[in-house]
Amino acid sequence: MSTDPDAAVHTAREFFTTRTVAETLAGFRPGRRTPAEPVPLADVLHRVPAAPVTAPHALPGYLQVAGAVRMGAEPDVTVAPGTVASMPTGGVLPPGADAVVMIEYTQEAMPGTIEVVRPVAPGDGVVRADEDAAPGAELVPPGRPLRAQDLGMLAAAGVTSVTVHARPRVTVFSTGDEVVPPGTAALRPGQVRDASAVALAAMVTEAGGEPVPGGIVPDDPEALEAALRAALTASDLIVISAGSSVGARDETAGVVRRLGQPGIWCHGLAIRPGKPTLLADCDGVPVIGLPGNPRSALVVFRLLGIPLVRLVGGCTMPPAEPVVRARLARDLASATGRLDVVQVHVHDGTATPIFGLSALLSVLTAADGYVIVPEEATGLDAGAEVEVTLYR
Amino acid sequence: MSTDPDAAVHTAREFFTTRTVAETLAGFRPGRRTPAEPVPLADVLHRVPAAPVTAPHALPGYLQVAGAVRMGAEPDVTVAPGTVASMPTGGVLPPGADAVVMIEYTQEAMPGTIEVVRPVAPGDGVVRADEDAAPGAELVPPGRPLRAQDLGMLAAAGVTSVTVHARPRVTVFSTGDEVVPPGTAALRPGQVRDASAVALAAMVTEAGGEPVPGGIVPDDPEALEAALRAALTASDLIVISAGSSVGARDETAGVVRRLGQPGIWCHGLAIRPGKPTLLADCDGVPVIGLPGNPRSALVVFRLLGIPLVRLVGGCTMPPAEPVVRARLARDLASATGRLDVVQVHVHDGTATPIFGLSALLSVLTAADGYVIVPEEATGLDAGAEVEVTLYR
Repeated sequence: MSTDPDAAVHTAREFFTTRTVAETLAGFRPGRRTPAEPVPLADVLHRVPAAPVTAPHALPGYLQVAGAVRMGAEPDVTVAPGTVASMPTGGVLPPGADAVVMIEYTQEAMPGTIEVVRPVAPGDGVVRADEDAAPGAELVPPGRPLRAQDLGMLAAAGVTSVTVHARPRVTVFSTGDEVVPPGTAALRPGQVRDASAVALAAMVTEAGGEPVPGGIVPDDPEALEAALRAALTASDLIVISAGSSVGARDETAGVVRRLGQPGIWCHGLAIRPGKPTLLADCDGVPVIGLPGNPRSALVVFRLLGIPLVRLVGGCTMPPAEPVVRARLARDLASATGRLDVVQVHVHDGTATPIFGLSALLSVLTAADGYVIVPEEATGLDAGAEVEVTLYR
Repeated sequence: MSTDPDAAVHTAREFFTTRTVAETLAGFRPGRRTPAEPVPLADVLHRVPAAPVTAPHALPGYLQVAGAVRMGAEPDVTVAPGTVASMPTGGVLPPGADAVVMIEYTQEAMPGTIEVVRPVAPGDGVVRADEDAAPGAELVPPGRPLRAQDLGMLAAAGVTSVTVHARPRVTVFSTGDEVVPPGTAALRPGQVRDASAVALAAMVTEAGGEPVPGGIVPDDPEALEAALRAALTASDLIVISAGSSVGARDETAGVVRRLGQPGIWCHGLAIRPGKPTLLADCDGVPVIGLPGNPRSALVVFRLLGIPLVRLVGGCTMPPAEPVVRARLARDLASATGRLDVVQVHVHDGTATPIFGLSALLSVLTAADGYVIVPEEATGLDAGAEVEVTLYR
């Protein structure tokens, strides 16, 4: 034992720092951001622009031809925004029209539609050649994953390559002498197949990251430290599955503490399932030590890991999750100060909690979604209206 | 003109068959389904199983160790479902326990957790070695895209390859002499860059399909027919962008009518925007002729094309879309019998409709989502609560 009181305090604090999910989501923000890279337009769906994308040229708008005004007759056509009527010189301006443009400055873009090819600014109205976008106008903002229609708008503007954040490389380790690859047909007593790694890799992909398989590391601090140090230089985020189970977590914490600064943010999270979670910031790279229980690991990674992958990948406007409102089929007990994640079936507006042993993945595969009992609640009553976040 | 009255009626009916969106979603179901193919577990996220995936081996559950019963003492531990207590032979059965198993038939799976390695069925309770899944049990159903936790469950069960539907190959054509590739820097008068193709390809990807670029086909029925016939053999779905604009749609309909049976389902859809939509079933392959206006094309493809891609790809349980309830900021007019799709901003629980010229993609890129005014409504009042489907 060290007799240096500071060292002892430091160790004790790190070991027992429990945080709430809310303070972690707000306060744990390691500095790592992936660099920008150019990507061809056809491949940028859901990628995150690293800067505003602007229009290189004017992008013309089009006007629908609503009808014609005859010479010497009262107009029987009304010109609404976005429409035009043809009229002879000297004809009566039809209701709604706020500009007249010479036919020489228009052309038929497609049948029934004209394009106004020179700016005009008569009376109280302006019809411009750059109706859809002026040169230099922002077409899509940075930080928001690109959607299908954004790609269409960029194509229309002549943008064929977009500077986006590189996908975060997320190295996923499994630890434990008992863990064997999923392809192991016959298990020896005490062995378990690695269920977490493939599921965590899938969630990394969902979040816009690039999963990097780290493999299975035995219960040996030196082997773990060597694996983590090698991964640190090549990763934007590191995930250690089973790295915080009762036996392994002191070892994991000890290794992570030596990896970089400022180090461990929490070792214990006020969440059920998922309490033995470790989070650290190692020189800007987030390191997540997940519970050994696969179900807890997947619940924690969905709530905290996915936002961290998005953070390092420059995504400041994450896409909405599908949610549905439903009534709880039964009471849910909880403890104040702890966030509970409860898996549910949803049918006909009723959310029925699914209970089962904490390690069982079958609860997650049976679930349509989950309900969160927030930190400040002591539980939810049967019949209460809750928001269910749906899996997809 | 043909003098055969049947031919005339046939032609007239096909040309003017307008359908509602509801009857199309329910009734237009071409028979094409993609074949099954084996895919490694690491690559099956969001893929659609072609058959139930079953457990090849028993998948053990685990029990948490809640405490110990001492010899000759009253138990001070309660055994809840999913937990165990150790006890000596002859000790008092603790409250809640419904089975006793010899320690030789258990092993420590991880610290604080045991696995029961032989089936036991004592008293009124059964604790089984196959708690998570028995051999042959269905792990995931067919038709539902695989989620991250499903991959974890399959890995735990030793499944390393899944038989899924092949991704539907969706060939996307753009038509029109005025359409030029997005990379065209300087437009000649009347030219427009192809905005639709890249956005449609992105939506195909979102729906689980594989977009195949068909290129830009000039306004020439023979060229279009040759292109469609070549694509038909290699496609599970064909999309013709701008194939139903006023000038081109008679040509497109004529070509599509010759492609296969039973042929055209509708040529005109009761939707705004998107009325000039053509749908056909050519020997089982769905063919979609989209409006020439890019904004209309993208709206129609989201509502009707994405479900068709899922249909041919065997997806019977599509993932939920993110929706949010909000109050309308202003009245929306509509016509009975027509479905209106209105783009909106959503902020602080208020959905503000975005209006603009019908061709403008900037309305779609500015939108957070859309509100549907259903066929039976004549409009929606300001302040009405509406469901907004959010883009992601």
